[in-house]
This record gives sequence, C-alpha cells and structure tokens, in this order.
Amino acid sequence: MEFTIVGAGMAGAFLALSLAREGHTVTVYDLRPDPRVASGEGSSMNLGLSRRGLDALGHAGLRSEVDALVMPMRGRLLHDREGGTRFSTYGDGGILAIQRSDLGALLVDAAAKVPGVRFVFEARCTGIEKDTATAYFVDQTTGKGLTAKADVLVGADGVYSAVRRFLQRDERAGYTQEFLDWGWRELHIPARPDGGFRMDPDVFHLWPRGDTMMFAHPNRDGSFTCSCVLPFRGPRSFETLREAGDVERLFRDLFPDLLELVPDIGTWFFDRPTMNLVTTRTTPWHHEDKVVLVGDACHAVFPFLAQGMNAAFEDCRELVSSLRAHPDDPGVAFERYYARRKPNTDALAEMSRRNFAELRDTVRSPAVRVEKALDVALERVSGKRWMPLHAMVTNTTIPYAQAQRRAARQHRLLRGLGVVGLAAIGTALLRKRLS
Amino acid sequence: MEFTIVGAGMAGAFLALSLAREGHTVTVYDLRPDPRVASGEGSSMNLGLSRRGLDALGHAGLRSEVDALVMPMRGRLLHDREGGTRFSTYGDGGILAIQRSDLGALLVDAAAKVPGVRFVFEARCTGIEKDTATAYFVDQTTGKGLTAKADVLVGADGVYSAVRRFLQRDERAGYTQEFLDWGWRELHIPARPDGGFRMDPDVFHLWPRGDTMMFAHPNRDGSFTCSCVLPFRGPRSFETLREAGDVERLFRDLFPDLLELVPDIGTWFFDRPTMNLVTTRTTPWHHEDKVVLVGDACHAVFPFLAQGMNAAFEDCRELVSSLRAHPDDPGVAFERYYARRKPNTDALAEMSRRNFAELRDTVRSPAVRVEKALDVALERVSGKRWMPLHAMVTNTTIPYAQAQRRAARQHRLLRGLGVVGLAAIGTALLRKRLS
Ligand SMILES: Cc1cc2nc3c(=O)[nH]c(=O)nc-3n(C[C@H](O)[C@H](O)[C@H](O)COP(=O)(O)OP(=O)(O)OC[C@H]3O[C@@H](n4cnc5c(N)ncnc54)[C@H](O)[C@@H]3O)c2cc1C
Ligand SMILES: Cc1cc2nc3c(=O)[nH]c(=O)nc-3n(C[C@H](O)[C@H](O)[C@H](O)COP(=O)(O)OP(=O)(O)OC[C@H]3O[C@@H](n4cnc5c(N)ncnc54)[C@H](O)[C@@H]3O)c2cc1C
Repeated sequence: MEFTIVGAGMAGAFLALSLAREGHTVTVYDLRPDPRVASGEGSSMNLGLSRRGLDALGHAGLRSEVDALVMPMRGRLLHDREGGTRFSTYGDGGILAIQRSDLGALLVDAAAKVPGVRFVFEARCTGIEKDTATAYFVDQTTGKGLTAKADVLVGADGVYSAVRRFLQRDERAGYTQEFLDWGWRELHIPARPDGGFRMDPDVFHLWPRGDTMMFAHPNRDGSFTCSCVLPFRGPRSFETLREAGDVERLFRDLFPDLLELVPDIGTWFFDRPTMNLVTTRTTPWHHEDKVVLVGDACHAVFPFLAQGMNAAFEDCRELVSSLRAHPDDPGVAFERYYARRKPNTDALAEMSRRNFAELRDTVRSPAVRVEKALDVALERVSGKRWMPLHAMVTNTTIPYAQAQRRAARQHRLLRGLGVVGLAAIGTALLRKRLS
Repeated sequence: MEFTIVGAGMAGAFLALSLAREGHTVTVYDLRPDPRVASGEGSSMNLGLSRRGLDALGHAGLRSEVDALVMPMRGRLLHDREGGTRFSTYGDGGILAIQRSDLGALLVDAAAKVPGVRFVFEARCTGIEKDTATAYFVDQTTGKGLTAKADVLVGADGVYSAVRRFLQRDERAGYTQEFLDWGWRELHIPARPDGGFRMDPDVFHLWPRGDTMMFAHPNRDGSFTCSCVLPFRGPRSFETLREAGDVERLFRDLFPDLLELVPDIGTWFFDRPTMNLVTTRTTPWHHEDKVVLVGDACHAVFPFLAQGMNAAFEDCRELVSSLRAHPDDPGVAFERYYARRKPNTDALAEMSRRNFAELRDTVRSPAVRVEKALDVALERVSGKRWMPLHAMVTNTTIPYAQAQRRAARQHRLLRGLGVVGLAAIGTALLRKRLS
C-alpha cells in the first residue's frame, strides 16, 4: 500500500521505517528542515528513553545505533535546598537520556535507507480531504502548493496536529485539551573546560521545590540540559521574573547549587521561549480506511513520566501489527489499533498527570515518602510480584492500563496494611488499658 | 459601557435586555434572520422552562408575556410498550413548555424596545481581535464585511461559538467536547381537526426504550413536538433505518401508540435532519476586560435535564450583577462571574450526562425505580429538608453544584439505609435460625 505520513518527528520517521520494512511505499512530509543536515542549534532538548521505546527501536534493528547516542541514567538524584542529595534507583535497565535531535536524525536516516521511503522537508500540511486520503502542503521556501494522495494518510504531526483538526471536522469527535498552569524553560549546564561533567553524569537530577522544580539530563558532550518548571502566575512565577536579578534571586533561594553551574543564568533565562505543558485526548483516531493518527497527534501527555515518545513508538508497532493482521482491510486494522492503544494512552495521560502532583509533593509529604519506600522495599522482597508503578511504566512493556490497575491494587493493599497496622496498635493500647 | 454581543439567541437577546436596563449600549449581531419576522417554519422545537429561567424572565419584567406563551406540564407521563402509562409529578411549579421561536421573538422584541439596544441580523461573525474587543462580520445577503468595536465583546453564539474559537487561540485554553453516540430527530404530532390535543396536554410525555427513546412536549396549537433519540449505529439505529418501512416497523415495535398519532411517519422521519447531542466545557470564559462568553458558547450540556437555556439565563444574571459589583473593572467582574458560574455549569454537565443514563434505565432497572420512589416519598414526609435531585434542579434556584452535593449526600444516606436494611434482615434471619 501507499502511505502519506505528515510529520517526520519521532512517530512519523519510526513509522515510515516500520511500514517500509513491511513492503509499503511511504512519503513523509515535515514542515521543518531535514534533521540530518539541520544545525540543531537552539534547543538541546533531551528525552528519557525507557524499556518500551528501546524495545521498539531494537525490534527495528537500531539498537547499536541508539546505544551510541545515549547516556544511561541509573536512577534519580534528588537535590534538596541545603545542597544535600538522595538517590533512588530506577531498577533494571534504568532510563537512557538521548538528544531529541540525535534520535530524530537517526530515525530519518534509517528510514531513508529503506527502499520505498521518501522524505519531503519544509512542507507544511495546510489541509486534508479525508475521504480520499489526500493531503495539501505548502512548500515553506517557495510558497508553492503540493498535493499528496495515497491509500492511507497518517497524521504524525504532533500535539497541535493539523491532520487531527481536519479529521475532526464535521464528525462527532470527542476532544479534550488541558494546559497546566505551569510552563517550562530549557537551560544549559555547560561541560567543564576539560570536557568533564559538573555533576554526576549517570543519573537524572531533580530539584523539587513544591510549585517550582528543575530537572536535568546528562548529554554526551559533558553538558546537561535542564528544564525549569514554574507556574505562570503567583508569587514565584514567570510573571514575577522580569529581569536577570529576579532570576538570580530565585535561584539563590531555591537552587543555590545550580547558580554556580549555569553561567549568566539571568541572560540565558530570558533568551529561551516558555513552553507549555498540555494533555490532549481525541476520539476517533481514524477515518474509515483512509486516515489514521499516531503519537502526540492523538494523545499528548504531560511529560512527567517521560513516556510520550515511548508511547508513540508503541503506537507505531501496534499499527503495523494491526495492518499485518488485516492486510486487506485497513479500516478494520485501524479499529483494532485504536481499541488496543486508546485505553493505554488514556491510562498514561492519567498517570502522567498524577506524577506531576507527586513530584511536587516529594519535598513536602513524608507520608508519600514512607509509602514509596515501602513500595520499593516490597518489590525487592517479592521477587517482582510486587512492582512500583514507576518501575512497571519504565522497566517493562506491561500495557499502561494494566500497570495502572495493578498499581491501584497495590496501593489499596498498602492502605489496607495501614488500617490493619492502626487497628493492631489500637488493640494493643486498649489491652494495656484494660489490663 | 458599550457592548457588542454575537448571537441573538436565548442568552444574547436576554443579556442585551438586561445590560440595556443597566444603562449600557448594546449592539447584537446574529447570522439568522430577525425572529420577529421569520416565518418560523421548519423546526417547531420547544424547550422546558423551569424555575431558574422563569425567575430570570420574571426579574426582567417579562412574566406575563411569557405566561401567554407557555404550556404548563405538571409532571412526566411514561408510556410503556403495551400502551400503559405511569405518571410522576414534577412537584410545585412544574415545567413550562415553550416554543423556542416564540421565546426568541419575545426576547428580541423586549430588548429592541429598550433604548440603547440595536439588532443586526443576517451577519455572521467570522473573526475577532480579542485585545481590542473587535468583531468582524459578513453580511449574509450582500456578502459585505462589517466591523464592530466596543468596550466589551460578548460571545453568545451558541455551542459552536466562533467567538470561543478565536478566544482560545494562542491561549492555554482548556477545552472538551464530547458527543453522544445518539442523535435525535424532531417529529410532529398534529392537533385534532377540531384543534384538540391527541394526548394529555399538560404533561411531558416519555417513551423510554433503553437505547431508543422518544419524548414530546405540548404546543399551544394542540400539536406536540416530539424528539426521537436513537443511536447512530447498531441493530436499531439511524444506520439501519433506510426507508419508510424500516421506520414504521421500528414504531410498530417500540412506539405503537405513536404510530397512529404521527401521520406519514416514514416520510416525516426522512425529511428532518439528524441533530447531535454534545457537551462542551471550556476555560477561561473571558479575555481580560475585553471578551466574555455566556450560555452554550461556554457550556453546552446534554439536554436530558432540560436546563441549558435556564442555565444561560442564570449566566446573564450573574454577569450583570458582577458588572454592577465592579462597574469600573470589567476584568474583575468577569473573573467573579466565571468563579461563580463555572462550578455550577460543570455540575450541570455532569448531572445532565447521568440523567441520560437514568432515562435509558427507567424501563429496565427496578432498583432505580425503588430508590426514586423512596426519594420522592422522603421529600413528602421531610417537609423539603429532603429533595430529589430533579426537584432541586427544576423547582428551585439552588446553585447546581450545591444541588449535586446535596443529592450525593442523600444518595449515600439511602444507600446506607439499604445496608442497614439488609443488616436488619440478616439479623432477623440469623435469629430465626438460632432460635
Ligand atoms: C518538555 C517535554 C519533555 C519530554 N520528555 C520526554 C521524555 O523524557 N521521554 C519521552 O518518551 N517523551 C518525552 N516527551 C514527549 C515527546 O517529546 C513526544 O511524545 C514525542 O515527541 C511525540 O512524537 P510525535 O512524532 O508524535 O511528535 P513530534 O515529535 O512533535 O513530531 C511532530 C512532527 O510533525 C511536524 N509537523 C507539525 N505540524 C506539521 C504540519 N502542519 N505539516 C507538516 N509537518 C508538521 C513537526 O515539525 C514535527 O517534526 C517530552 C515532551 C515535552 C514537551
Ligand atoms: C434537543 C435539545 C433540547 C433542549 N431542550 C432544552 C430544554 O428543554 N430546556 C432548556 O433550558 N434548554 C434546552 N436545550 C438547551 C438550549 O437550547 C440551549 O442551552 C440554549 O439555546 C442556549 O442559548 P444560547 O443563546 O447560548 O445559544 P443559542 O440559543 O443556540 O443561540 C446562539 C445564537 O448565535 C447565533 N450564531 C451562532 N454562530 C454565529 C456567528 N458566527 N455569527 C453570528 N451569530 C451566530 C445563532 O444564530 C443563534 O441565534 C435543549 C437543547 C437541545 C439541543
């Protein structure tokens, strides 16, 4: 079959590769320049690649190429206000930090090498005709129009997907978008002059401060990419940071250790755009046997579980295997794909939302800490029959919805133990009194 | 102040009236023709007006005009498949059936009589500039453009609001739309040749059949307007009704009594468009002190509690009173309006959704019936300290969120009684066994 894919990001490029391997013909359009030649300047954003994503990339035969690009993180290092740290392990496998631009270029490169794949860059999708799987583009340099008609049109054009918008038109489409009242800005900790790292290079660094937080991933060149998460409004927010001095004061107060590591923090801070954090859900994900969505185009999530890209790769695998199961009826394949993925991406959205609250509470609530510790301890003694949610999400390929249910069961059990514990104490006290 | 209102429907016309009474200048634009001269042919849709709406209209001095247009319904008459009926009262006040076109014309007429109000019909809003409270229109007959700039721009343009869409642009706007997999079609039961009614004229008629249902409101001319609610897909759905014979079979099977009352049901059925049922939520409802939304434009709900219009009138009252409280700072007034209305319209959305499930279950579940009966009985003996949810929504102006909380409390109590009841029976049985 012939596919048009809109978007050559994580999902689009990976799907092109996977479909072409199955013998399909694929043309991929993206509004941005070719990531293989693009300078990559500006954002140095990096992503956490965990078991699900790694499995998908391995399945596509990219394991060794990927291994050459990653920085393994074996756990999370919490930095407190006084400069103290607390480490917690990610368990087997851990999470790998990878530059978005590196992985993007790798995927496009790998896909472009498979016969039947063609990339067209700097072409913006401006509309679709869903009954005929036709997409319209405008060449970003010449301003000329392009039309692409195939058997199937795939929307892999990310959270603000144009394909989705046109798919929804005149349909009873369910749709939700929900923005956090927090935004983030990317900051950069450069390598030491000798190329060395200024902090532990093999962990994910986290500075939770309630409403404000900071985290950092290591890069292979000795630098770190940090994200500063701040509310848009309120006493300590983007709104109140107006000049370099305000930023320095904020850092001195909340992240004094970082103040030394990020040079010219005030200038840097105002050089970077503020990015939004958004969850979107939509239904349906396809139109008959003509149009189908993958990745952020159908389910963007808050990034606090670091799973968006991993989930996008899972989408692609499921889509390809559904097409293999129903080679003569893509419409049925898309139904199957949706039925299998939707409950899981809904669960991921919910878990990602909660994880934000939990991250913010990490500093505050000893109760959460006790339960977490117990959760981890139980994993160790139970021989994997008990697994903390984060471990199921990160270190396994257990479907998200199933992981969520299992974690809920475990949580109820822990709560139950709490009640039993209190009851035991109560009984003991009563006995003492009566005796 | 000067206001532009987009939409001269229920909310727009009522708000124009209310604002002008406060001394403001208002221009209202609507894409449809003037309802005072429009023939009103086609749809004969009627709405249930209950206490909240009636209070608002009374407050605006329209009580006697409204009284002349309504058909009071003192309760609900359930029709079963065998032609049997069961009546349940709406309690004090009841609900008034009113033709949408009658009320629309009345509101426009009343508003147009107040100095400072001007209506422009057949003008479609095609865009807004939110920072300057500017709206752009296209005259539907000449195709010419119109620009309106005022102090405040109000979006009262209903569920598919153009103003909302432009308001959301480049904002961290929360938005949800959720369509039911059911649609509806309007049917018509004509008056008898002598002008009399073919069924009881003073009740709301309901034919619940699980996945399919029908309801009818009386009109003053002896006719009834019916709505036929059907799933879009499935064994008994719009999809399977392809010709007059299919419709007749469906009616013979599910609504045999109606078959005699709706002449040429087959033809009628295919003459009417299928309408969607949708819930929408959005946030924010305003942009600074420039743009604000009311009615369905900010919160369309499923119509199964018959409250959408009533809630829209409540919005207008709250908006006007907030502007009165902060005459010099509309931005603060809009914040207050939003803070007071949003929890209530969210509660209404939730209750309306549930009511659909309940309507569908009415036929099926005896448990629901027992609880309902108990609920109503308790109201009678408790001297209003206990009130069924439907009564609070319909017969009072208790804020929706408060009604919802109170009903939840009552529900828990009833459940509790159930548990106590079961326990009592269990104990009795045990005693019997032991004795
Ligand atoms: C702050 C942040 C941190 C994150 N951290 C992680 C993490 O650690 N781990 C993880 O797994 N995920 C993470 N994610 C999520 C991850 O980035 C996304 O889930 C992933 O990129 C989705 O892939 P995609 O291909 O669907 O979309 P994208 O990667 O966004 O690709 C969409 C592509 O479509 C193109 N496009 C858009 N519109 C058009 C158009 N009209 N015409 C043509 N082309 C178009 C774009 O140029 C882009 O190349 C993070 C996200 C954020 C915001
Ligand atoms: C099947 C059904 C049954 C219902 N039953 C009840 C009931 O029994 N009781 C009840 O209280 N509510 C009921 N409702 C809900 C009720 O109809 C709405 O809540 C109410 O009409 C909302 O008023 P509004 O002014 O916000 O929107 P509308 O009444 O829809 O008015 C919007 C106006 O804006 C105009 N407009 C739209 N777009 C533009 C544009 N771009 N430019 C210019 N003008 C524009 C339209 O022409 C229209 O006149 C029902 C709804 C449905 C669908």
